[in-house]
Amino acid sequence: MKYHMGIDIGGTDIKIGILDETNRIICRHSEPMRARLPFDEMMRLLADAAQGMMRQCGLAAADFPYAGVGIPAFVDARTENLVYANNTDWVNVPLKKTLQQRLEMPVLVENDANCALAAEVAAGAAQGVANVVMLTLGTGVGGGVLINHKLYSGADGMGTELGHMQLKYGGEMCTCGIRGCFEAYASVTGLIRQAKRAMRKHPDSMMHTMRAAQGKVNGKLIFDAAKTGDAAALQVVDNYIGYVAAGIGSLANIFRSELALIGGGLSNAGEFLLAPLQERANAFVFAHELIGGPRVAAATMGNDAGLVGAALLGEL
Amino acid sequence: MKYHMGIDIGGTDIKIGILDETNRIICRHSEPMRARLPFDEMMRLLADAAQGMMRQCGLAAADFPYAGVGIPAFVDARTENLVYANNTDWVNVPLKKTLQQRLEMPVLVENDANCALAAEVAAGAAQGVANVVMLTLGTGVGGGVLINHKLYSGADGMGTELGHMQLKYGGEMCTCGIRGCFEAYASVTGLIRQAKRAMRKHPDSMMHTMRAAQGKVNGKLIFDAAKTGDAAALQVVDNYIGYVAAGIGSLANIFRSELALIGGGLSNAGEFLLAPLQERANAFVFAHELIGGPRVAAATMGNDAGLVGAALLGEL
Repeated sequence: MKYHMGIDIGGTDIKIGILDETNRIICRHSEPMRARLPFDEMMRLLADAAQGMMRQCGLAAADFPYAGVGIPAFVDARTENLVYANNTDWVNVPLKKTLQQRLEMPVLVENDANCALAAEVAAGAAQGVANVVMLTLGTGVGGGVLINHKLYSGADGMGTELGHMQLKYGGEMCTCGIRGCFEAYASVTGLIRQAKRAMRKHPDSMMHTMRAAQGKVNGKLIFDAAKTGDAAALQVVDNYIGYVAAGIGSLANIFRSELALIGGGLSNAGEFLLAPLQERANAFVFAHELIGGPRVAAATMGNDAGLVGAALLGEL
Repeated sequence: MKYHMGIDIGGTDIKIGILDETNRIICRHSEPMRARLPFDEMMRLLADAAQGMMRQCGLAAADFPYAGVGIPAFVDARTENLVYANNTDWVNVPLKKTLQQRLEMPVLVENDANCALAAEVAAGAAQGVANVVMLTLGTGVGGGVLINHKLYSGADGMGTELGHMQLKYGGEMCTCGIRGCFEAYASVTGLIRQAKRAMRKHPDSMMHTMRAAQGKVNGKLIFDAAKTGDAAALQVVDNYIGYVAAGIGSLANIFRSELALIGGGLSNAGEFLLAPLQERANAFVFAHELIGGPRVAAATMGNDAGLVGAALLGEL
C-alpha cells in the first residue's frame, strides 16, 4: 500500500489529496466547506468526493492503509470523535466511525495544528527531530507539540492550545473571550490590529500608500513596509517579533524542544523575521546562557501542510 | 528491600531521611548546606551523614534499592549529572556517580520541583492521578508535570521551568533577568512585593499593625489580614489569585491535566485560596464551558515533600 489519502476539513474549503510513495500529491480535489449542512450529509458528500478521486486515479480502498483527517476542532483522543468544531454546528459527532464506514478503510483524525506539525515531521523542516514546538501564525495561532517523536495533545487530546496560554495578563481581548492570550498578540489578526493602530498614529506611514494600492492591510503589507524602512511599520514588526519570541521562550522553558517551527504565511518573510526572532526568543529562555534555547526555523510544507500531514498521520 | 532513602539538598539545609515500607520517615538528619564548599568535600560530608544514619537504624546499603536525591538545579536527563545549581558554584559535577560510589548503591537525581510532585503522586494528593501539573509557590515558583504517570522534564531534562513562562509581557522583572515571568507574580516573593506596595498606598491597612506585631510581612500575614476583611489585603490577595489562576489556566490549555496541585506554605490558606482559585482558573481555560478544566487542590506532603519525593523517585 504505497498511497496515502489526506482530508483537510478547513474553515472555508475541504481539500482531499492522494500522495504517492514519495509523498507527492498525485491527485487533489477541493470543494467549499458547507459548515451549515447536517453532519451526515456533509460526510456523504465528502466520502463521494474521495471515492470519485480514487476511481479517477485507478485506486481502491485496499490501496490505502488509512485515510487521515485534519480539522480545526477538539478531537476526543480515545474515540477520535469530533467533540466540537468552532466553525460548524457539529457537537460530539462520530467523525471517525462515519468516515470509516463510508470509505471502507481505517480513518485517523487529528486537529489541524497537529496535522501541520505531522507534515513537517514526515516530509518538511522537522524531519529527524525528536522534540518540536510548532506555532502556525494565521487568523489564530495553531500550536503543535512533538515529544520524543510523538504528537502530544494533552491528557485528553484537547490540549496544546498554545495560542491560549497567557502572554500579557489583562491585555488584549482574544476571540476566545479571555484577555491576554498569546494568540491576541502573535496571530496575523493581532499583527494587523497593531498595524492599524500605528497607522492611525502615523498618517505619514508608507503603510497608508501601500493600503491605497493594494486595498487592504495584511501581514505581507506590514512586513513589506518594514523592509523598506518605514518607521511605523518597523516598530509594529519589532513589537510583534517580541511577542512571538516571548511565546517561543515560554514554551522552551516548558518543553525544551530542539526546534521551534514557525508556520503560516508570515514565515515567508525569511531571515527578516527569523534572525531577530531567534535572538529574542533566546532572551526569554531561562538560563539560556548556560543551557541554550531551541533553533527557530520556518516551516516548509506551505499551504498543503494540513493535507499532507493528515495523509501521513499514521507514519509518525 | 523495604526501606527508601531520600536526600533533599536545599538552599539552606540538607535533609536526609529513611522511609519504612509505609513511607513513614523513621530516621532523619539535617545539616546546613555549605554551598561554598568544594563539591567533593560536600559529597564526602553528605555520604558520611547518610551512612551514619544507616548504621544508627541498623541498616546497610543492601537494604535500599537506591538513594534518591532532590536538588534545586538543572539535572542532565541522560547522565543525571548536575549541570548547574543556582545557589552553589557547582557546574557540570558528576553528582550521581560520586554519590553512587560513596553510598555503594544506585542513586537517582531529580530537581526539587519534580521531587515534590513525586511525593504527592506516591503518597499525597496526586495518588492515582495520571496527569498533574504542580506549582510550588515559595521564594520562587517550582513547576512539576506528570504526563501519563511519568515525570516530564522537557526534552533535555531541563524543562518545565513553569515559573519562567510569561505571564505579563514587559511586566515585573524576575530574579532570572527576564521581565514578566509567572514567578515574578505568583511566588510568595511576588505576593510580598505586591503587599508592600499596597501598604505604602494604604497606611490605614491592618497589614501595618500586623507587621508591627510580627516583625515582617510574609504570605501568612497577608492572607490573615485579608481574612479579617482588610480592604488593601483583600485587593492584594484578589490580584494574586488572578495571577496564579492565569498560570493554572495557561498550563491547562497546554497539558489538559486532570489535577492542578498547589504546594508551598500558602496552600495552608485552604478554601480561602482554593475556592476562588478553582473558579478563576477555569475562566482561563480555552472552551472550558465545553471541555472543563483541571481540579485545583492543595498539596498535602508539606515540608517533607522534597525528602519523601526523592526517596520514592524510583517508585513512580
